[in-house]
Amino acid sequence: MILQNQDFQERIARVQEIIADTDLDAVMVFSTESEPAGVRYFADYWPSFETCAVIIPKQGAAALVIGPECLTYAKSRSRLPDIIQVMDFRESSQPDYPGSPHPDWPEILGRFKIRKLGIAGWYMFPYPIMLKIQKALGGVEQVVEADDIINRIRIKKTPNELQCLRQAAKISEIGFRAVLENIKPGMSEVELCGIATAAMLANGAEATGYPIWCCSGPNSNQAISRPSLRKVQRSEIIHLSVGAKCEGYSASVGRPVVLGPCPDNIRRLMQVGLDASDLTFELMQAGEHSGTVATKIHDFVKQQGYGHALLYGPAHGCGQMECEYPFLETSSTYTLEENMVFMADMFLYENGMGLRWEDGLIIRRGPAEKLSSFARELLILN
Amino acid sequence: MILQNQDFQERIARVQEIIADTDLDAVMVFSTESEPAGVRYFADYWPSFETCAVIIPKQGAAALVIGPECLTYAKSRSRLPDIIQVMDFRESSQPDYPGSPHPDWPEILGRFKIRKLGIAGWYMFPYPIMLKIQKALGGVEQVVEADDIINRIRIKKTPNELQCLRQAAKISEIGFRAVLENIKPGMSEVELCGIATAAMLANGAEATGYPIWCCSGPNSNQAISRPSLRKVQRSEIIHLSVGAKCEGYSASVGRPVVLGPCPDNIRRLMQVGLDASDLTFELMQAGEHSGTVATKIHDFVKQQGYGHALLYGPAHGCGQMECEYPFLETSSTYTLEENMVFMADMFLYENGMGLRWEDGLIIRRGPAEKLSSFARELLILN
Repeated sequence: MILQNQDFQERIARVQEIIADTDLDAVMVFSTESEPAGVRYFADYWPSFETCAVIIPKQGAAALVIGPECLTYAKSRSRLPDIIQVMDFRESSQPDYPGSPHPDWPEILGRFKIRKLGIAGWYMFPYPIMLKIQKALGGVEQVVEADDIINRIRIKKTPNELQCLRQAAKISEIGFRAVLENIKPGMSEVELCGIATAAMLANGAEATGYPIWCCSGPNSNQAISRPSLRKVQRSEIIHLSVGAKCEGYSASVGRPVVLGPCPDNIRRLMQVGLDASDLTFELMQAGEHSGTVATKIHDFVKQQGYGHALLYGPAHGCGQMECEYPFLETSSTYTLEENMVFMADMFLYENGMGLRWEDGLIIRRGPAEKLSSFARELLILN
Repeated sequence: MILQNQDFQERIARVQEIIADTDLDAVMVFSTESEPAGVRYFADYWPSFETCAVIIPKQGAAALVIGPECLTYAKSRSRLPDIIQVMDFRESSQPDYPGSPHPDWPEILGRFKIRKLGIAGWYMFPYPIMLKIQKALGGVEQVVEADDIINRIRIKKTPNELQCLRQAAKISEIGFRAVLENIKPGMSEVELCGIATAAMLANGAEATGYPIWCCSGPNSNQAISRPSLRKVQRSEIIHLSVGAKCEGYSASVGRPVVLGPCPDNIRRLMQVGLDASDLTFELMQAGEHSGTVATKIHDFVKQQGYGHALLYGPAHGCGQMECEYPFLETSSTYTLEENMVFMADMFLYENGMGLRWEDGLIIRRGPAEKLSSFARELLILN
């Protein structure tokens, strides 16, 4: 294990430092099966089926709040010994659990003497639970958004976090390599994802970093996708996004692959994407203005005649979520700082085809540290 | 493909029939990456990273509403040709997308002349989006819960849905068999899940049905879990939940496995679980009262001396979600009907060990149809 209890204690202490001078009595960080990062960051627990939260009071120990079915699982994972169960965090089938009485919000919030609460994970916090919490605290104005507090802390990574991300990237490369060694025309997109997944899980990944995908031929123009049963063919773009998760940290390796022969228009799109990705690694340096960097990279793509092929900015934050705050957009206004981690994510699409080049990077004074560099070349296979 | 466009049209027509005599102008069904079932049921689209919804107006064509990055993906999957993009369904990293203007809720809801809206997926509908929709419609009372409408339709499966579920169960068995053929002491829990995943994806699954898991030894008492890097050993319970997804329908095969020799207390717990699972198949018949059936099965477990080992009811609904409404609990009040589909899910835990027997069943007049029956025996391997 790279992460120690102290890592989690320090994160909680930083939140408490930030809220010390505010009127908030606590911050509650909410997570779900597909958005596990907030709770994982403070408790090392990540939910499945159910939802969960961490309550960080202004002073004193934080607590993990889980649903009715996860107590033994949570006990085996949580870095926080105080675990509270609540019915509202049950799974979507909404079982009754007649034999399992649990405290409701007035009791839970009362235990921490909370009158005013900040919530992180605000953009996905369920409406009916919010109403109950507002009622328990005596008013709508007693609950406010607190995502900024968490984003401020998470945006720069500690040495241990960087180790987790390097490890996740290394295992992602193993997954991608397994695909390159086994891919043949006639294999399905999902089958290739299965090969990558098995290789990563046999080599130290705790999971995939996100629902990994392969999209080929007419599907390759999909920026976000899920693999289908389509069989891959020669002379088309087969584009894979493969990522591992290690101790909660997610990486990704994205490459287009062609089973030759490779048509000229595909070769050209691949090369422009790789060049733009190389430029991203070159320009993303500590001290640079985010929006200016994004604009320079997009200008390069436009100069190459592919301005129409852009959908979003050339990089996005990476940590526990493979894609986390902040995005690097032409509209971004922050300054790049050392130990921020990004995915250089160059997605281009046009006329029924597309591709992604994606590798992680750590911001440095000078050229970025690459998290993965395996096979950063035109992968035209026999 | 088993499911045809007509299947989806019929589902939408049934919602429209139900709301015809109400004051609702439309139902909006909301889904997320980890809770994709609602939107998949009506549009055949399932999100990744972003969220989404289907708007079913009282009359006329339904529409799929997606986030800013999924248009090409959605076009390749959606059974509904009308696809609307909205910024609020973007991914959690909350990119700006400065080049992608999209309509907001007043325009979208206005297009369908909606004044009063029912929402399904209510229990997970994000608070900030709900506020915007309430404002667009002119009041809190203009938006109401509509999960019951969807649950009523989904609870009994059509012949095509049953085919999808049989297919998912068959491929789940292939995944489980691959584990039995490859498991050795010293392999990690995640590695075994990787073997099952690769086998299912190479044999027609579009994905796992849920985040599948293996939990072994001291982890085996976890009702819900995620696989860890722990290496499996001899003479302990290794408990696997393996499930495939086919055309949106999810199944599961759950079994305890022991690499021998097998201690007597483990053998006894396994046998009681298997017997209780057999009893579940026997008692779940059309016309029976749900709560009575659950009570009989729990009474059997108690008679065997394992009442302390129960956490929840002996079965739960199954369809697009591997675990969906309704649960079979001692507190349940509905009557079992033909073509309802359940997972017989017997989880027992005590003193740092536990196990699950899980197989799907279709309710019949008479004994249930088993969705899977492979290896329903004490799996004590060499």
